[in-house]
Amino acid sequence: MREVFQQELREVQDRLVETAELVADSIEKATRAFNRSDVTLAEEVIADDYRIDQLTVALDELAITILARQQPVARDLRIVVSALRISASLERMGDMSTHISQLARYRYPDKVVLKSLRPTFAELGRLDVEIARKLVELLRTEDVVLAEEIRNEDDKVDALHLHVFDKVLGATWKGEAVETVDVTLASRYHERFADHAVSIAKKVQYLVTGDWDPEKSAP
Amino acid sequence: MREVFQQELREVQDRLVETAELVADSIEKATRAFNRSDVTLAEEVIADDYRIDQLTVALDELAITILARQQPVARDLRIVVSALRISASLERMGDMSTHISQLARYRYPDKVVLKSLRPTFAELGRLDVEIARKLVELLRTEDVVLAEEIRNEDDKVDALHLHVFDKVLGATWKGEAVETVDVTLASRYHERFADHAVSIAKKVQYLVTGDWDPEKSAP
Repeated sequence: MREVFQQELREVQDRLVETAELVADSIEKATRAFNRSDVTLAEEVIADDYRIDQLTVALDELAITILARQQPVARDLRIVVSALRISASLERMGDMSTHISQLARYRYPDKVVLKSLRPTFAELGRLDVEIARKLVELLRTEDVVLAEEIRNEDDKVDALHLHVFDKVLGATWKGEAVETVDVTLASRYHERFADHAVSIAKKVQYLVTGDWDPEKSAP
Repeated sequence: MREVFQQELREVQDRLVETAELVADSIEKATRAFNRSDVTLAEEVIADDYRIDQLTVALDELAITILARQQPVARDLRIVVSALRISASLERMGDMSTHISQLARYRYPDKVVLKSLRPTFAELGRLDVEIARKLVELLRTEDVVLAEEIRNEDDKVDALHLHVFDKVLGATWKGEAVETVDVTLASRYHERFADHAVSIAKKVQYLVTGDWDPEKSAP
């Protein structure tokens, strides 16, 4: 029974990695579509999001089946519950890629972002992609150094997110309302994407180290 | 054992209701603070959010303890897993109240919303509060008619959310960038609040009716 359980846990982990890979691909394409006004790529991201949704639904069903069949307790139970939560966060990360792509599609053939903010969004996109790739590696290797790196990159994302608002609310901002709306939402989506990655990283870190502060966040 | 389990499930339900009540209070105060520029009330919402967070963390721990001790299967298992998910959504709803309150606080003593959009935000606030109150009743009574009503109100919220963008992107919009940013975010927060309520309503509906489409959303 124990061996079956270990095998099923490996299956859960493999599927989390697979889903995270799709999420990393989606944010890479979404940010490229956004920064280059590539409507074809944007539509590809939007059309492909159902695959992430399907994988997470299947993963949830697998986790529930394991809970029912294996009746895990203690740490094993927390691993399965965490998988459910990681799955939910991955699903939301896919949604953020979709939202970023939708902005690119709505404004096509115009670029979403005014020149003065393009380097900021290029960097936000680069960081989100890097965070997503590190998340894949973290889920695969459980190397908690990666969790720390993800948190650090998220701090950079937060700083850039604030920088966007400084810029938009500053005296030199020349954007029309449409540009103001778009960069506000786009910046928020980039920031939320990274937040979800941090929330997953914390869960993995907890599972690996057992270092858990329930006041801070739930596993 | 069965009786203990039923008692523990009632405890879970009671705590979900209690948390939902706090969330309903928080959105009521947040939208009032937002629409009337009441900075004291805004700060109260922000300061009180930790109570919602604490309740959801404790609820999660209870659910995990029940999984470990009672080893539920089939429908019972899905009830407990759903409780974990409902708890996560309630926690996010509290965050949305906090975000709405923060907008009121940042702009104080100014109002966040220009005159032309005030009736829209008054209605968005009214709908979010109504949805939150219905959610409390739904969790308490499991009367699925309420789930349907919540979905209908959410449709109204979505329509108003689109109306905000029509207004902001229209020729008559006179807002500065700061007002454009604020109404964009405020509208998004109101809309997300209602979305989370719908996601909870679907889970309750599923648990009561057993009518479940895994392709649509996870329990």
